[in-house]
Amino acid sequence: MAKIPEKTIERLSKYRRAVLSYQAAGKHHIFSHQLASLLHITPVQVRRDLMLIGHTGTLRRGYEIKDLIDNISEIIDTDKGQRVAVIGLGNLGKAFISYLNGKRSKLTIVAAFDINFDKIERNFAGVPCYHIDNLNEIIKTENITIGIIAVPTEQATEVAEKLVFAGIKGILNYSPKSLNVPPSVFLEEYDMITSLEKVAYYSKLQ
Amino acid sequence: MAKIPEKTIERLSKYRRAVLSYQAAGKHHIFSHQLASLLHITPVQVRRDLMLIGHTGTLRRGYEIKDLIDNISEIIDTDKGQRVAVIGLGNLGKAFISYLNGKRSKLTIVAAFDINFDKIERNFAGVPCYHIDNLNEIIKTENITIGIIAVPTEQATEVAEKLVFAGIKGILNYSPKSLNVPPSVFLEEYDMITSLEKVAYYSKLQ
Repeated sequence: MAKIPEKTIERLSKYRRAVLSYQAAGKHHIFSHQLASLLHITPVQVRRDLMLIGHTGTLRRGYEIKDLIDNISEIIDTDKGQRVAVIGLGNLGKAFISYLNGKRSKLTIVAAFDINFDKIERNFAGVPCYHIDNLNEIIKTENITIGIIAVPTEQATEVAEKLVFAGIKGILNYSPKSLNVPPSVFLEEYDMITSLEKVAYYSKLQ
Repeated sequence: MAKIPEKTIERLSKYRRAVLSYQAAGKHHIFSHQLASLLHITPVQVRRDLMLIGHTGTLRRGYEIKDLIDNISEIIDTDKGQRVAVIGLGNLGKAFISYLNGKRSKLTIVAAFDINFDKIERNFAGVPCYHIDNLNEIIKTENITIGIIAVPTEQATEVAEKLVFAGIKGILNYSPKSLNVPPSVFLEEYDMITSLEKVAYYSKLQ
């Protein structure tokens, strides 16, 4: 299958979560308009996205939930799952670990890194914390493919370089420092201040 | 001035931060290609964005940094600044407070809300924490216009309803629950799991 556009992948991730909770409520089928309403988007968008991944429903019963989950999982997940490291065990790093672990069987945070010796060689929510100097070794021995950067701005570039050097495949950067990585690494960046300033601008106009 | 598109506002926020650090390093002017390189975008994009807000540089010296900062600030900020509340004082709420306060003179987190009595009536990093039952009253007396939702999924809808009822202008929602708000409120949502699943998908293809 051709590479799926970023916005579609984001929606597929949300569809899966929405239908998982539908399934947990004992439902077996869902209509496009129901799925659309859970995400506050249009039914046309839902049908277009699911058609793109070759998934079709029936007029009478809609989409079969189990099939839909399997179908999306096949696209997003890998069979063995992927292993994730969090770099920077401050409040943000901890938020990610508390929030994620146990919720996704195919994405597991297996290591945290920090420079604070109070945190190193201890566990946070079951995740061991190592010194950043051991990053290269741990990424390799633990077979980690994704790194989440949650360190202060000044350290972000150095951390990204270490991750790339260690052979990471994807980086999720939460520091406000915009990074530059080689094309062999997928980079996604999110900047809290920018989001808040955007809300501030539009709030002012409300 | 007409309402500026979301993507442009996001870049303006980033331009301002980039030139603030340039200014802190003692520089007075910046060329579009320098600004572009700090953000890893094209100089054409920079020139187009700044032209949209009526800002022009000179061929010889580029943009004057002080003017540029003033110009962007006039668009994003309000004179008196805006006051912000964080709802949910878990790791994510704390990350936001530690990260933001003191960095933006025009956006100040003045209150946190939680349901945990260990947190209520105490301060975190100088921000007082109140019981969620006092939200309506505090939002009004403290003149808060922006709310950041950092509560678990199940509580997100109820918190949003309380914020809207209290007359908030903008919401930044970090819970994975997609919200529905009246058009009088600007809503920005960010979902950590979706971002990570997106990185997982593209990492797999690398």
